Amino acid sequence: MSATTAAQHNDQPGRIMAGEMAEQPEVLRRILREGAPRIQEVAAAIAARHPRFVLLTARGTSDNAALYAKYLLEVQLGLPCGLTSMSTTTAYGAKPDLRDVLMITVSQSGGSPDLVASARAAREAGAITLAVTNNAGSPLAEVSEYHIDVLAGEEKALPATKTYTAELLTLYLFVEGLAGGDGAAAKVLPDLAQQILARQEEVRILAGRYRFAERMVLTSRGYGYPTAKEAALKLMETSYIPALSYSGADLLHGPLAMVDNVSPVIAIVTDGRGGEALQPVLERLRGRGADLVVIGTQAEAAKASAGFALPTENVAEEVQPILEILPLQMLAYEVTIARGQDPDAPRALAKVTETH
Amino acid sequence: MSATTAAQHNDQPGRIMAGEMAEQPEVLRRILREGAPRIQEVAAAIAARHPRFVLLTARGTSDNAALYAKYLLEVQLGLPCGLTSMSTTTAYGAKPDLRDVLMITVSQSGGSPDLVASARAAREAGAITLAVTNNAGSPLAEVSEYHIDVLAGEEKALPATKTYTAELLTLYLFVEGLAGGDGAAAKVLPDLAQQILARQEEVRILAGRYRFAERMVLTSRGYGYPTAKEAALKLMETSYIPALSYSGADLLHGPLAMVDNVSPVIAIVTDGRGGEALQPVLERLRGRGADLVVIGTQAEAAKASAGFALPTENVAEEVQPILEILPLQMLAYEVTIARGQDPDAPRALAKVTETH
Repeated sequence: MSATTAAQHNDQPGRIMAGEMAEQPEVLRRILREGAPRIQEVAAAIAARHPRFVLLTARGTSDNAALYAKYLLEVQLGLPCGLTSMSTTTAYGAKPDLRDVLMITVSQSGGSPDLVASARAAREAGAITLAVTNNAGSPLAEVSEYHIDVLAGEEKALPATKTYTAELLTLYLFVEGLAGGDGAAAKVLPDLAQQILARQEEVRILAGRYRFAERMVLTSRGYGYPTAKEAALKLMETSYIPALSYSGADLLHGPLAMVDNVSPVIAIVTDGRGGEALQPVLERLRGRGADLVVIGTQAEAAKASAGFALPTENVAEEVQPILEILPLQMLAYEVTIARGQDPDAPRALAKVTETH
Repeated sequence: MSATTAAQHNDQPGRIMAGEMAEQPEVLRRILREGAPRIQEVAAAIAARHPRFVLLTARGTSDNAALYAKYLLEVQLGLPCGLTSMSTTTAYGAKPDLRDVLMITVSQSGGSPDLVASARAAREAGAITLAVTNNAGSPLAEVSEYHIDVLAGEEKALPATKTYTAELLTLYLFVEGLAGGDGAAAKVLPDLAQQILARQEEVRILAGRYRFAERMVLTSRGYGYPTAKEAALKLMETSYIPALSYSGADLLHGPLAMVDNVSPVIAIVTDGRGGEALQPVLERLRGRGADLVVIGTQAEAAKASAGFALPTENVAEEVQPILEILPLQMLAYEVTIARGQDPDAPRALAKVTETH
């Protein structure tokens, strides 16, 4: 049941995922070099149509990329956004009025039937439809009015890594394009990503902490929140550790009861307003004696039980998520290897999920 | 740290929560009898202003009620909706254009500063603002243009129960009012709720299953999905069991790797299109030999490892969530009692959460 084509021939556990993680700096360079003009062109065409609301549709890893875009659109452009509850269309046949609405569908494969059906229905309902995928020839690209290719190259490992960061950068450049910006803040990312990915030994030591963990909690606020969700998904689908993610504010509304010194917490502390808004939560966690690992600035990491310091100087807050996820992808990988499992071949997963 | 005023004097663990769960049929009756005219009036006033997009703002339990309203608004009215990422306003100072937007803020206490700030900002940005709270004198009610009281009476236990079902019914009647309906489908609910709450012994037996569980997965699709999320929150904040909730479609995109015969699954199978859309997920779970408990029709419960059969005959799909949550509230209570803990006093929680 759990065997996959990739895994059946995999005598070196995690080889495929490790290879794809390592490609990320090059993928980011490719998007900035080759992808940017097309992204700019699509953004200009859509901006000229003055959408008033944005709906984002995606599942799994791409849903976390869509959430990142939601923060960007709301903060940078003041556009009210919603994440689609797909079943309202696919199961209940809702017929919404989508004039003035931009519907962005994000999908690695562009092949999931419910995403295709949802994008088609949105277009029929009057929405401007944009597909962001890693497959220009996909059914989703075909049914959508606009398409942007994230140029990540074929992804073979089941846990998505390079397509996630490629989606983030593509969505960042798209929103910059809508706002009339040049996306210059992204230029530093490829080199910094490369530096982070070289720090494997540091992550391996951090992974030792979770070798026997039975649960984990991830938290953040603002731009870092999609990172918390994506890290939780990555940890679960590779290592099977139940990893719960909450915005810092929601954590105080209930799940904090679950956090004590047997529930380790990873906080993603973005350098900027998101990180500032998280401070009361970090204090509360430290006050409870939680095992707190911080992914963030040197200063924040130093105050925690342990941490992974990210380069944040001259890195705009809104592009930090593209770097923040990297040590967490590596962590999911290392924890899984330490547990004697194969990160390339999670049980029960298929690469293209056929939900209807 | 964990002691609360309620708990300090509580020599009978769970007494307060049990009392408030038992009040639910009466609260539902009160809303239908005394609340409905005011709800109808507010709905008519808002309908006359023709909102084109709805934003919903809430946290914790109320966020799950807001998600239920999102399904109703999308399916019954074809209104595109979004759940607010509050920090875009409160931390990043986003200034969205909210003309033609209805902003509904749902909060038991109406006192959380970030909700108040967010509602105030929405009103300044041109939104029609509606507060749905259990406190007519609250700051949230005051800053909002419209207010609806959910009439649940003071809630003292930290885990919200009667305010959740009161919010669901109020939001159902409000959306019915917007759509020009009479909300007649809700009339059966108080008596059926009473019948379900009388089946405590059945739930106690079910709870035995989770006495030593280290994690749980809850899943559903469509109208039942908010129930899965609320049940997970309830289980976590009372028993501290890590409870993960996923829409059935998302479950197949990754977290399924975590489900095996040591991760029990609870599926909420709404009688209607949501339940139909969940069938492939149920088959997949049965195929993996998962320990599957179904909250749903007699027929669905019979096919599972165990179940709690709900009355669904003559109960419209869209009001079933108001009943579905009841056995799950009881389950959270019973599991917590079985584990020797006090459901009234989860560690670290305050009734009004002061997030900013």
